[in-house]
Amino acid sequence: MSSFSVGVDLGGTNLRVAAYTRTSGLLETILLPTRLSAGRHAVIEDMCQAIRKLLANHSLQHELVGIGIGTPGPLELPAGRLHNPPNLPGWDGFELRVEIEACLDMPVTVESDANVAALAECLLGSGHTLGIDSLCMLTLGTGIGNGIILNGKIWHGANGMGGEAGHTNIWPDGPACGCGSNGCLEMYASATAVRRIALESAQSGKAPAIAALAAANPDFTPRDLSDLAESGAPDAQRVFDDVGRALGIGIGDLVNTLNLPLYVVGGGLANAWNLFSPTLFKEVRHRSYVYRLTEPGSAVLNGNMNTGTRIIAAELGADSGLLGACILPYTLSEQRTADTPDTTLR
Amino acid sequence: MSSFSVGVDLGGTNLRVAAYTRTSGLLETILLPTRLSAGRHAVIEDMCQAIRKLLANHSLQHELVGIGIGTPGPLELPAGRLHNPPNLPGWDGFELRVEIEACLDMPVTVESDANVAALAECLLGSGHTLGIDSLCMLTLGTGIGNGIILNGKIWHGANGMGGEAGHTNIWPDGPACGCGSNGCLEMYASATAVRRIALESAQSGKAPAIAALAAANPDFTPRDLSDLAESGAPDAQRVFDDVGRALGIGIGDLVNTLNLPLYVVGGGLANAWNLFSPTLFKEVRHRSYVYRLTEPGSAVLNGNMNTGTRIIAAELGADSGLLGACILPYTLSEQRTADTPDTTLR
Repeated sequence: MSSFSVGVDLGGTNLRVAAYTRTSGLLETILLPTRLSAGRHAVIEDMCQAIRKLLANHSLQHELVGIGIGTPGPLELPAGRLHNPPNLPGWDGFELRVEIEACLDMPVTVESDANVAALAECLLGSGHTLGIDSLCMLTLGTGIGNGIILNGKIWHGANGMGGEAGHTNIWPDGPACGCGSNGCLEMYASATAVRRIALESAQSGKAPAIAALAAANPDFTPRDLSDLAESGAPDAQRVFDDVGRALGIGIGDLVNTLNLPLYVVGGGLANAWNLFSPTLFKEVRHRSYVYRLTEPGSAVLNGNMNTGTRIIAAELGADSGLLGACILPYTLSEQRTADTPDTTLR
Repeated sequence: MSSFSVGVDLGGTNLRVAAYTRTSGLLETILLPTRLSAGRHAVIEDMCQAIRKLLANHSLQHELVGIGIGTPGPLELPAGRLHNPPNLPGWDGFELRVEIEACLDMPVTVESDANVAALAECLLGSGHTLGIDSLCMLTLGTGIGNGIILNGKIWHGANGMGGEAGHTNIWPDGPACGCGSNGCLEMYASATAVRRIALESAQSGKAPAIAALAAANPDFTPRDLSDLAESGAPDAQRVFDDVGRALGIGIGDLVNTLNLPLYVVGGGLANAWNLFSPTLFKEVRHRSYVYRLTEPGSAVLNGNMNTGTRIIAAELGADSGLLGACILPYTLSEQRTADTPDTTLR
């Protein structure tokens, strides 16, 4: 009998639950609203009901490998406890893993949403395409999520909180970030930041095209702004130039510290890759001599190394969080049978 | 027969070569000048002659485990090739491992000096004392070296260049760094930076005590400056306040990204720990919510976690580079017989 898993993508707005096999991908997906106003126990009950439905629909044809849950963080591991998650207001201290397991009467694995998205991108997306199983992914959304995968496994750190590079310092005296710091990467390269920076430039009087967009559509999205830049408006392009610069500084730090073979930029804002990547690459070359030594065509690559440092847009789209939750039980099942050497990358 | 290793600490000024056993520590140490002006082959010949002497002196009583070499970086691995090392001018592209092996007619292991210092601090210093085998160490010297140890092993990254966090961004438009970037941590918290910042403040007219020190002794050291601060001069203390702030920003980034249990500050400037650590801790609390959640006495530690995030001064002193080179062959010998699970910290 072939195997299947159930994955959950718990978001602040939507709750997606899917059954998945390695060969067929997503077998069945249930999409629900996340009823935050009904309280966290109602959300857990909705989630568990959907999980039970999928288990009932697929357990006859397939053997269950496990259940994976991707959740907004910060998530403390191994406890599976949330700490003041900005996208799940009121859930501070919630014992997410324990509560789901009590409701289902089955073990589950919980992970932060940015970690499972990075896992999916590594095992099913660009990492798979390039034959690379270690990467660092930045997910540019409302905030900036981050996941680090080393040799095919999520890097947790000591308390499950590794991979918060969305809060890397860019400008120490920059705007106040929700995390309590100032001038984090998230304040310059998230969807929220793009809107704020665009509005500030419109208010400065130096961005006539953005001012016209904001007047016509006060709720304009980053997509509206990227359309404007693509139509040739230099003031809109400048916003994405700034996004690229901040990402270049942040990714430069990550390259210098981690020297991974692959850095991936995902999330909705990654649609504007062509608009912000020129300044991103210019900045990361300025910031990181490790990048200059190891970028495609560099000194190290012309030597006897068969790998270097790649920075690319994510291959998987909005499904990466759900797919990552689905493949998580498979990776844990494989880890139980085979350990791999660690601090030297494969 | 008990085992021994030979370790080399290759510096820009001194060359130290030692024989070492696990039970007795350093058996015999040979100290030589690094004759950079005589050319790199002369330096390699001096090194190999000292290694051969120690092998001859100790091979009858002990069995050789291996030979470890710590060198200024950047060092490309596994090739063992140097790339424009600032402390070994003229050695760009030098095949360090190959050259030493050809001269000795034996295999050796080469590592960057910051990596072996971190390994020693982990296995023989504060990591050993605390029972922790993963850490990130910053060595504050002429520049800032960095080594990352995960589960007792050096983190190399894809090209041997992991652990260059001395070049983490602090202020993007700060002073030009030797690495090609601007405003790196090294420009604010190295011994070189401390002298520069002190001289700038003396020239500003707002630092009378430093101005008097610089007039009496133009070659004053960071130690002279810390003595001045300890004697109560507020202008000298302000220099160390700034060092702590920069370190807090840089370490905050590392805590957010890596979530390791231990961050160690070493090198000569770490003698001034009491002068700069108050602003370091204040800043890292501001910068890193992962630190606030996991610092001693924090939410996570009051839960069911038995570890959290510690930031401390190094336990080992100036010998850490030499000791790390000596224990490197032992750690590799152990890795050949036992692999450990990786991305979950022990």
